[in-house]
Amino acid sequence: MKIAVDAMGGDFAPANPVAGAVEALHSNNHISHLYLVGDKTRVEAELRRQGPPDSRIEIVHASEIIEMHDSPVQAVRHKKDSSMGRAIDLVKLGEADAIVSAGNTGALMTSALLKLRTLEGVDRPGLAVLIPAPENVFVLMDVGVNLEPRPENLVQYAVMSSLYSQQILKYQNPRVAVFSIGSEDMKGNELTLETHKLLKQTSLNFIGNIDGHDLFANIADVIITDAFVGNAVLKSCESAARVVGKWLKQEMMRNPLRMLGGLLARGAFRAILRKADPDEYGGAVLLGINGVCIKAHGASTPKAIKNAIRLATEFVEGQFNEHIIERLKHVHDQIQQTTSAQPPVSTNS
Amino acid sequence: MKIAVDAMGGDFAPANPVAGAVEALHSNNHISHLYLVGDKTRVEAELRRQGPPDSRIEIVHASEIIEMHDSPVQAVRHKKDSSMGRAIDLVKLGEADAIVSAGNTGALMTSALLKLRTLEGVDRPGLAVLIPAPENVFVLMDVGVNLEPRPENLVQYAVMSSLYSQQILKYQNPRVAVFSIGSEDMKGNELTLETHKLLKQTSLNFIGNIDGHDLFANIADVIITDAFVGNAVLKSCESAARVVGKWLKQEMMRNPLRMLGGLLARGAFRAILRKADPDEYGGAVLLGINGVCIKAHGASTPKAIKNAIRLATEFVEGQFNEHIIERLKHVHDQIQQTTSAQPPVSTNS
Repeated sequence: MKIAVDAMGGDFAPANPVAGAVEALHSNNHISHLYLVGDKTRVEAELRRQGPPDSRIEIVHASEIIEMHDSPVQAVRHKKDSSMGRAIDLVKLGEADAIVSAGNTGALMTSALLKLRTLEGVDRPGLAVLIPAPENVFVLMDVGVNLEPRPENLVQYAVMSSLYSQQILKYQNPRVAVFSIGSEDMKGNELTLETHKLLKQTSLNFIGNIDGHDLFANIADVIITDAFVGNAVLKSCESAARVVGKWLKQEMMRNPLRMLGGLLARGAFRAILRKADPDEYGGAVLLGINGVCIKAHGASTPKAIKNAIRLATEFVEGQFNEHIIERLKHVHDQIQQTTSAQPPVSTNS
Repeated sequence: MKIAVDAMGGDFAPANPVAGAVEALHSNNHISHLYLVGDKTRVEAELRRQGPPDSRIEIVHASEIIEMHDSPVQAVRHKKDSSMGRAIDLVKLGEADAIVSAGNTGALMTSALLKLRTLEGVDRPGLAVLIPAPENVFVLMDVGVNLEPRPENLVQYAVMSSLYSQQILKYQNPRVAVFSIGSEDMKGNELTLETHKLLKQTSLNFIGNIDGHDLFANIADVIITDAFVGNAVLKSCESAARVVGKWLKQEMMRNPLRMLGGLLARGAFRAILRKADPDEYGGAVLLGINGVCIKAHGASTPKAIKNAIRLATEFVEGQFNEHIIERLKHVHDQIQQTTSAQPPVSTNS
């Protein structure tokens, strides 16, 4: 298997992408070839710092870098020789099976969509993330692509996320929910209500609505929403959790007794940080495109990059995209059949 | 000042609404009259348990109760003699200045809107809540009424929330932001982009977009959004904060050393619980209707009800609604002037 890594993407590039790639090769012998795409001189210098060379690594030079603050469309249009764009080209040309980047999210999504196109049966791709809860880990999709999706888009997201949960997280029969403003069936807006109707016609394990209140209550393993709400939910959860931690730390430093208490209980804090560590999850996945594309977060450590590469190999090995195409056909047929099986509306009554 | 309390609303009614009302009268001598609306026998029994009678209390009998799971529209239509409806009627008839209820949110909003109507200059009311952060307390609106608002609705929410922050929280010049999926001006959907343009034309202290990442970073004191996103953000933050606390508790109980640590540091936990205690904030406020309407949360303690009543008195005393009408006229004029001052588009170039 061949992986392309955008060596210049992220806040700590090329250091962390290069270090993460080297770590990934140490622990993963399924990778036969790893492209580090970026400024040749800088990537080489980083590589030398990582010890003896691994023959599976190949540096592919790219002269430009898409910065985190660049406008995605402008960047994709004008930076033709960017590390990100060149890395995606490798997938497009069949030279690599997957791309991993910690760079500009919008540019990665735009560029991957333009260069790789969508999978058969997918109208719009979407970005899926994993969120850890005390008793399960759930997939939240879409958190970044489709701000105003149609119900059919959300059904496709449900199929893709459900397969993600099954194949990568090994959930046998993931519970699929639509994010809404209350758990009752009738609560929601036009989009969620219509999506509800469609999902009921599929063989997915659809359990209905979920709202923000129940996110972490082990009720759903797959939560589907539009990118505006998904982004809002993801970031709100992250900042609320972070603020509680930070606040507690401040309060713990206020007197020696509390500080001692914090010291004695530090195992508890570490256990949570470990389970909630975003670096463990490898990053967000752009689902629905013709290729495997992993977005590691901007501040990725080498460990985060390593895990993003591991995630990429799991998608490739599991022939994830081939399975999506099959499943989508199947679900499409189910919806078609239900629709055609409904009794025609009588015009005589 | 006269306050109507829905004595049958909430998970612990009539006990907690009655106890909270009695507590409110102890600490608040601005209240000349307090109506307890509900089942006379049950309310009387509760009142007797609260000690010697306060002559300012009057029980108003209502034979029906709107339950938490009732459909709002059905409840409002069919339960004509509900405690909630009767309490709102007192405001409508001018017998009371404000209503406080811990009952069914949807029914309260529907009923208050139908019976009291909107204020002059307000197209749609909205629900505003206060959210505590380490360095400020911000108003989030709308979290419950308007699922698909127009930009003008959001501008009205901005005016009302801004006055809320000034008058009740005493923020001199509250920073107003539109909730979006990134802080950059060009990020958002049609609604947020259009709202952005309008808010720039007002004299509000408009600072641009805020996203979930920066909610608690002391960047904005007033955050405006539609009810779907507002509800999602509010509940997501609550559950993420709750899950971190719960998780930490579990981890702290795992061994004696951690338990001792937790015990020594308990002052830190308590300090946070105190500041983040929803009972401190009295509840959500339905802004934009012709009257003062406070929604205490369903599980309200007597303390929460007492604070909801205090909040109601602050709105009444500050002549909040009169000020809203003035402000809205002013902002409306500002937007009109900007629009008419713009140079006409030349058709010759």
